[in-house]
Amino acid sequence: MLIKQGPLLNNIQYPEDLRKLKPEQLHEVAEELRQYIIDMVSVHGGHFGASLGVVELTVALHYVFNTPDDQLIWDVGHQAYGHKILTGRKDNFYSNRIYGGISGFPKRKESEYDAFGVGHSSTSISAALGMAMGSMHNNEPNRQHIAVIGDGALTAGLAFEGMNHAGSIKDANILIILNDNCMAIDPNVGALKEYLTDITTSPTYNKVKDDIWNLLGKMSRFGKSARDIVGKVENAMKGALLSQSNFFEALNLRYFGPIDGHDIDHLTEVLKDLKDIPGPKILHCLTVKGKGYGPAEVDQTKWHAPGLFDKVTGEIQKKVNDKPVAPKFQDVFGHTIVELAEKNKNIVGITPAMPSGSSLNIMMKAMPDRAFDVGIAEQHAVTLSAGMATRGLAVYCNIYSTFMQRAYDQVIHDVCLQELPVIFCLDRAGFAGADGPTHHGAYDIAYMRCIPNMIVASPINEEELRNMMFLAQSDEVQTGKQAFTIRYPRGEGVMPDWRKPFSKITIGKGQKLKDGEDLAILSFGPIGNQATLAIKDLEKEGISTAHYDMRFAKPLDEQMLHEVFRKFDKIITLEDGCLQGGIGSAVLEFMVDHGYTAQLKRLGMPDRLVEHGEQYQLYAECGYDAAGIFKTAKSLTKKELTVKY
Amino acid sequence: MLIKQGPLLNNIQYPEDLRKLKPEQLHEVAEELRQYIIDMVSVHGGHFGASLGVVELTVALHYVFNTPDDQLIWDVGHQAYGHKILTGRKDNFYSNRIYGGISGFPKRKESEYDAFGVGHSSTSISAALGMAMGSMHNNEPNRQHIAVIGDGALTAGLAFEGMNHAGSIKDANILIILNDNCMAIDPNVGALKEYLTDITTSPTYNKVKDDIWNLLGKMSRFGKSARDIVGKVENAMKGALLSQSNFFEALNLRYFGPIDGHDIDHLTEVLKDLKDIPGPKILHCLTVKGKGYGPAEVDQTKWHAPGLFDKVTGEIQKKVNDKPVAPKFQDVFGHTIVELAEKNKNIVGITPAMPSGSSLNIMMKAMPDRAFDVGIAEQHAVTLSAGMATRGLAVYCNIYSTFMQRAYDQVIHDVCLQELPVIFCLDRAGFAGADGPTHHGAYDIAYMRCIPNMIVASPINEEELRNMMFLAQSDEVQTGKQAFTIRYPRGEGVMPDWRKPFSKITIGKGQKLKDGEDLAILSFGPIGNQATLAIKDLEKEGISTAHYDMRFAKPLDEQMLHEVFRKFDKIITLEDGCLQGGIGSAVLEFMVDHGYTAQLKRLGMPDRLVEHGEQYQLYAECGYDAAGIFKTAKSLTKKELTVKY
Repeated sequence: MLIKQGPLLNNIQYPEDLRKLKPEQLHEVAEELRQYIIDMVSVHGGHFGASLGVVELTVALHYVFNTPDDQLIWDVGHQAYGHKILTGRKDNFYSNRIYGGISGFPKRKESEYDAFGVGHSSTSISAALGMAMGSMHNNEPNRQHIAVIGDGALTAGLAFEGMNHAGSIKDANILIILNDNCMAIDPNVGALKEYLTDITTSPTYNKVKDDIWNLLGKMSRFGKSARDIVGKVENAMKGALLSQSNFFEALNLRYFGPIDGHDIDHLTEVLKDLKDIPGPKILHCLTVKGKGYGPAEVDQTKWHAPGLFDKVTGEIQKKVNDKPVAPKFQDVFGHTIVELAEKNKNIVGITPAMPSGSSLNIMMKAMPDRAFDVGIAEQHAVTLSAGMATRGLAVYCNIYSTFMQRAYDQVIHDVCLQELPVIFCLDRAGFAGADGPTHHGAYDIAYMRCIPNMIVASPINEEELRNMMFLAQSDEVQTGKQAFTIRYPRGEGVMPDWRKPFSKITIGKGQKLKDGEDLAILSFGPIGNQATLAIKDLEKEGISTAHYDMRFAKPLDEQMLHEVFRKFDKIITLEDGCLQGGIGSAVLEFMVDHGYTAQLKRLGMPDRLVEHGEQYQLYAECGYDAAGIFKTAKSLTKKELTVKY
Repeated sequence: MLIKQGPLLNNIQYPEDLRKLKPEQLHEVAEELRQYIIDMVSVHGGHFGASLGVVELTVALHYVFNTPDDQLIWDVGHQAYGHKILTGRKDNFYSNRIYGGISGFPKRKESEYDAFGVGHSSTSISAALGMAMGSMHNNEPNRQHIAVIGDGALTAGLAFEGMNHAGSIKDANILIILNDNCMAIDPNVGALKEYLTDITTSPTYNKVKDDIWNLLGKMSRFGKSARDIVGKVENAMKGALLSQSNFFEALNLRYFGPIDGHDIDHLTEVLKDLKDIPGPKILHCLTVKGKGYGPAEVDQTKWHAPGLFDKVTGEIQKKVNDKPVAPKFQDVFGHTIVELAEKNKNIVGITPAMPSGSSLNIMMKAMPDRAFDVGIAEQHAVTLSAGMATRGLAVYCNIYSTFMQRAYDQVIHDVCLQELPVIFCLDRAGFAGADGPTHHGAYDIAYMRCIPNMIVASPINEEELRNMMFLAQSDEVQTGKQAFTIRYPRGEGVMPDWRKPFSKITIGKGQKLKDGEDLAILSFGPIGNQATLAIKDLEKEGISTAHYDMRFAKPLDEQMLHEVFRKFDKIITLEDGCLQGGIGSAVLEFMVDHGYTAQLKRLGMPDRLVEHGEQYQLYAECGYDAAGIFKTAKSLTKKELTVKY
């Protein structure tokens, strides 16, 4: 579908075109850009509210700064649609987030205007400082380095570490733009959020300081003894201002603002002024997520990434399915934790800023005292869970697989080394889909199974997820000395009728789903359903294929594996995760440790970055959709055993 | 050696004994405790300065709070010697950090007084908050939760995440004690450090506020119009105080202090008062690292963990060696980076708070503009390095293997996904020795080799470390698209004469160190020198053993592995790292992917926690010292191939 462009936007391919315009034309550019984003996302999908909120900021930044020589770094990056449209990607923006198309996030390979690739939050300050220090090293004193970071992203420790260091590098040409809209995907939480509200609603630093000084000046007319007292007040004031500086100024960042992030004239002026102020500084901009599109301003979480919608009525398209609809795994998690928590008073739930993404919001609504959103703070989420576990709570700490990378040390050092039975629910494990490589949950099997005192499980379907969650809170696990990881993918499962009563699973026991003679497939997690499909076709071709659902990557079901290796010499392992060190490798370790030999083919993610696309497209690309499994099985059963020597 | 105790300390086994004393006796207890620590560490070794700095605080905390019911959490934990001595471990304190003895850090398994195990920094606030929320959940409103954290540890993002959340949980009974001594192991850095100095040297918050109010009160005597102005000044002041609150109060933590952390009377009083103030709060204590032992107060870095010393003269014992002394790997790193940086102007060095531990301090002294200590902030260190790499710098980012766990996501998301050639030098890879499981560099081979665009190398000796560092900064790597990890262990290597000229290594090429016929050993890193020793004994027994130094865990030297698997059917892999997913597994993956079979025994760390001890003791315990390798090789060459079926 061809999207109409306004007349000014039509003439802009790159920021140099934008910079030819007069300042008074920027209003119109912003409006056209906003409309273009609305038109595009309504028919092609993608992130929405965040980009609408920074339209004016985007235009002003590219107008004032000399991009790409000046380095513009978008934190998280899902707000960078306007930036992409103004930097050479307008004409293929329709391919945003589509297999083979442009990325939904800034990406260095895609454009020289994307100074730093991103997808996870809170990296921009450190990256910008690194670039600024690089420019100091390269003797480029005029180059500017701008990090645009949301207030939600500011709660992550990495952002703080970056600010703390930036404030001590006095010559670093770095401008942090705090895009304050009180939201991440869900409303922002934490003490800093309240602080930002306070400094926004109360008179600003400089204003108050000036007022006091003026008033004290007036006092002086009361004569010498009054002037003496005024002098003392002034000295005390200086001490007060020193000892109680603004939060950011405490970190040696010069603080400016807050200003209206939608007032493009003022924005442009302020940014020009800041260009001439050397050293690390922060500009506090107030914006509205979803700005300019009514429904998105009202329900910001829903409109973070709404899918396709009717831009006139604001009606979001529902997916139409002929088949009965299976639930999303996240919703099975959300409903099941509530069900379990009603019986087990020790259960609590933790999410770092993903109440809607994890569906923990179901429990937050049902049991607000027992489900906690801690903000974008994965490290804290895990160590907090560890602390709670020491007091006897059964903690379900729900973190996307890719974000769990942020808390790896905490899993090792605070949980597993202390033998605490924290339950980690890793949502979005395996290929994440349209969000691409920054969001693929690729490495968790490898990075979790190498840790002692860790159980690693994955359910093949919704019922199994429920049973694994049931097991995790049982006395057996909670009085044991091991953490319990349950990984499951983004999106829907396969069981429309998923609300089965709980039944008991044993730690480290897999299940044989189907017998066979020629070949065994050992699968881990819901990707096993692709094996089920492949096996139907294999049987038609006369290849009798057994199917084992591993259930646990750690501990392995050794009894089952002995059975498999005694019976089969052709084996396929299947996982939706990286092949290096994954469950396939765990099976190899077992095989060789026990002196078995077999032709064993491991299917899973290859050792390269896999870009974005629908999950089924990525499975196919990597040869582990049903067709790929079928192909591998056929070639394996045709070949003779490779003889050594 | 029997260490004499003072008369009061002699009667204290547990805090309940301490709490029977009168307040005026606490001075004496503190002095006796300090002397006991000095006496103990001088003859048994261990951490020193940090524990001396918190003697008064330790006594006061156990006197005022009802430990272990009240939860006392020591951050990092190397300052907890006094705590250990007062909580049941005085009589076996001589075994501190010795194989089979007590741990140098708090450890839950060791004592109920160790509320949270630790070793890495900055976990205490999150853990204490988790416990406090657990107590809220368990309806225990009077239980106290105290985190003692140093100013150095406060710079880590995790601490900030914890404070930001704590400030929003208004009923959490949590007291953060900021032990401000301006030091981590090395002097503390960053903007927050300067801020803490500012609020320490300027009049305190409350004092200044009171002064101003008093002075304004005096102004009122000048009549109504003066009173009007005073009213306006007061209102403006309130606005100022709101908008420019103290850094900690901006995070909703009630701030008290700073107070003298060595004034035990005042400390005791303040802690008693704080017990009655509900909600999250912070007490800022000023202490001196090494307090009470002159030399340790003067050179705090040297006396962080000095080894054995003469307590009278302050002379630190030098290790006596008959053999020529091989250098520490860290010093080879430190000297070599300077040597390389003199020729390659793009080279810079980064350390997160380990200038002396990594020996980057050699470069910081020689080239202060090109070597940076960023404070305890591993995540930032990596993303900063990524930012620098985008500007063409060749960054050596030196982080202990165990601390790199803190920056795992940054390695994946900011470096490898962006194909940036950052060089990671992982010191303390493998068993760390006396620091124990929190510090063992156990998992890095597994967690690094599963990431695409990552080279993983380890040198067998000092010369190889130099050559790998030489390779890492070469155009081949720096214009490539891969990060480069070099792991090496704590302590000395094997080459007294190590300053060899650089020679070129090829990425992914191993080396055959010795031919053989019966058996091949494939080793990775300096642990290969144990294989060399074992092979000498094996040859004496008539077992002809080949030795291959893998050099690279990724990419593997496939040509060499083909040679090995074509020639040998008995193979040992050897690594100083976890067996799950390590280089042994990488070799298995190669073997099975290429249809080879062999009896292959993987030697390395088992899937359980290995406690502290000398490195050689831990290698022996895990069966991969020379004797263990010898034993495995013998049993492997005796046995017939296990026949399947």
